Amino acid sequence: MKRVLVTGARGFIARNCLAPLAKAGFEVHAVGRTPFDTGIDLTFHKADVLDPMARVHILETVRPTHLLHAAWNLETRDYMESAENYRWVGMSLDLTREFAEAGGRRALYTGTCYEYRWGSAVLDERKTPLGPRTQYGKAKAGLFRLTEDLADATGISIAWSRLFFLYGPYEGRRRLVPSVISSILSGREAPTTHGRQLRDYMYSIDVGRALVALLDSEVAGPVNIGTGTATSIAGLVSDAARLCGHPELLRVGALEARPGEVKRVVAATERLRSEVGWDDYTPMETGLAETVAWWRRELAL
Amino acid sequence: MKRVLVTGARGFIARNCLAPLAKAGFEVHAVGRTPFDTGIDLTFHKADVLDPMARVHILETVRPTHLLHAAWNLETRDYMESAENYRWVGMSLDLTREFAEAGGRRALYTGTCYEYRWGSAVLDERKTPLGPRTQYGKAKAGLFRLTEDLADATGISIAWSRLFFLYGPYEGRRRLVPSVISSILSGREAPTTHGRQLRDYMYSIDVGRALVALLDSEVAGPVNIGTGTATSIAGLVSDAARLCGHPELLRVGALEARPGEVKRVVAATERLRSEVGWDDYTPMETGLAETVAWWRRELAL
Repeated sequence: MKRVLVTGARGFIARNCLAPLAKAGFEVHAVGRTPFDTGIDLTFHKADVLDPMARVHILETVRPTHLLHAAWNLETRDYMESAENYRWVGMSLDLTREFAEAGGRRALYTGTCYEYRWGSAVLDERKTPLGPRTQYGKAKAGLFRLTEDLADATGISIAWSRLFFLYGPYEGRRRLVPSVISSILSGREAPTTHGRQLRDYMYSIDVGRALVALLDSEVAGPVNIGTGTATSIAGLVSDAARLCGHPELLRVGALEARPGEVKRVVAATERLRSEVGWDDYTPMETGLAETVAWWRRELAL
Repeated sequence: MKRVLVTGARGFIARNCLAPLAKAGFEVHAVGRTPFDTGIDLTFHKADVLDPMARVHILETVRPTHLLHAAWNLETRDYMESAENYRWVGMSLDLTREFAEAGGRRALYTGTCYEYRWGSAVLDERKTPLGPRTQYGKAKAGLFRLTEDLADATGISIAWSRLFFLYGPYEGRRRLVPSVISSILSGREAPTTHGRQLRDYMYSIDVGRALVALLDSEVAGPVNIGTGTATSIAGLVSDAARLCGHPELLRVGALEARPGEVKRVVAATERLRSEVGWDDYTPMETGLAETVAWWRRELAL
């Protein structure tokens, strides 16, 4: 029996993992402060994952074989530079130790492309050095190293996903793609920066499925979750605006860009495709169309 | 007014810092589970430093300007390879964040020579790569990196001491030098391994004074706390046995050595001597004689 405990289940990343987890045969347990309609059959444990007593109680009760740890401080606008990131480092180390003590065997973490030193054509798990420039990236990179060591010390198997850029269902309303889509669907103009940077954008539904494939594998260490394809931000929002039916409402270049943006951030995908064996990408045109349709339903509520 | 909060105050390291802190003009506050006779004028806060509520309460009450964080899981025999080390990583990050939030300005941590990759003639803060081989070293090295990042995020000034090998008052009874001294003072034989490894042994009274000088300075980043001198373990215990009056009770080579011991572990001391300006070492002959005298008093109790 595979029993998984999911943290941060309501968030953008884990939310997209819930249905794939159930489909992969996991008994799904989620922990969070506020229950929500997940649409799948799972057990929700109402608790603050930062509370050690509550955490240990849930672990002892559920005795999960697997852990999908996606909880992190991403709710505030300044999360990239907040000292709060380090609170989640400690919590994550505690959770791993407690999970192992409760008999857990396999854990998956949500790292980030912000752990890498940006600049090379693709960011490779094996070759690209870590060199985070933000507090978010530093905290995740530091936690990655410590989690690998702690996994050795406790004997559990771990995978560390490195997420690149995502678009799709359950993204926060104020973030780029949702804000463009919701503005345009509401008939308002959507101003953006020039958007000439190239980023690796992956459909969130695919991210959820890829993460579950990774968790359900025995692949250890860091694994990029990306497409390997460079998408310009301007191209992405233009496509979204077109699919919303009002490309003329998009105002690319109306906002001033931040200086010093790195031109290209793209994932090496060899580990995901060959080692995990996941290669089932949704074409971006389809993903964006589904995303626009999803927001139409959300905004109608 | 300088107000320092000391964690792990009863332990080998911090215990030796208490008198120097008072002498340097600090108002001294200690936190720990069990009050003890410190011999100096300080405020003891009875609490488990792993308890977040208690910790924040003390920080809010004391509002320390300085922090000397020496608490760590060193009580168990297997601490070098224990997963418990990672519990203290999280706790230490939380403490730093809480200290900064409570208005703290300057913090000193107790790192270790076990963070370094061993093998070079001296281990240098600027040049020697980190490459810990033990869980203790890995946890401390990981915490070091994160603490530097967290200091940036919160704006506090930090120093990270890297302690080498210590002998002297307040060392745990079961450790090498105390066990040799107490056996011989009790008239029993003291078997040891060949002890040909060279280590940087510093008198614990000196370590306490050097740490307080570092805390009271503005020197940032990692600073070795060592002598720069290679002492063979056999030589150290032979001197101790002689000072106990019964060199014939020492049985060097009676125990089998662990294979693969690194020959030489010695500190570069440039930062401590020149940047911190601390250079007031006690000769080893004096330090060992004082240590033997200290144990005579302890064992008489």
